[in-house]
Amino acid sequence: MQSQLDSSFSALSDPTRRAVIERLVNGPASVSDLASPHDMALPTFMRHLKVLEDSGLVRSVKKGRVRTCHIEAAPLMELQGWLEWQRRVWDQRLDRLSTLAEKINRNTS
Amino acid sequence: MQSQLDSSFSALSDPTRRAVIERLVNGPASVSDLASPHDMALPTFMRHLKVLEDSGLVRSVKKGRVRTCHIEAAPLMELQGWLEWQRRVWDQRLDRLSTLAEKINRNTS
Repeated sequence: MQSQLDSSFSALSDPTRRAVIERLVNGPASVSDLASPHDMALPTFMRHLKVLEDSGLVRSVKKGRVRTCHIEAAPLMELQGWLEWQRRVWDQRLDRLSTLAEKINRNTS
Repeated sequence: MQSQLDSSFSALSDPTRRAVIERLVNGPASVSDLASPHDMALPTFMRHLKVLEDSGLVRSVKKGRVRTCHIEAAPLMELQGWLEWQRRVWDQRLDRLSTLAEKINRNTS
């Protein structure tokens, strides 16, 4: 079974889908507004949008003839949380290494 | 052509590969140490490792019979940078919305 992180990372591995997210963090937008900057057939664009909706990163609501999309913050924050955690562990390791290097320096000087 | 962000996001869309990154942020490790917690055939594990190396997130060096893997920080920081940027734009939007809500409140009360 695909976890939320699996499908979030997978959904963002495409420049068109990242561009949709970059647009939607500024606020909701209609499907036609989202599609207009992209030089591709509408069905192709809709497939990208479907990947984003299936991943839970984007939700859409239809009102009359207009479908409006918006960001779901939680999966994006989960992604950011995972990456921040890796970064924190990595930074702590660099700190330990530099403390060790200082100790070695003091002992050899 | 796949960009660095494309291949980084794609490489991290799998739990085995994320587990390898979670291990390597603690420091370099041999391939056999990396493989041991994973209940899968070594060739399957090696394919996951190859995806990580192809993406540039992981590098490996062979010394004698031991291949040691380590993290490449730059692509991981690029990922984190992209997500932080989305988060910042998103937060600014929420700030604008709450300022607007306050104004409306003041005008109607």
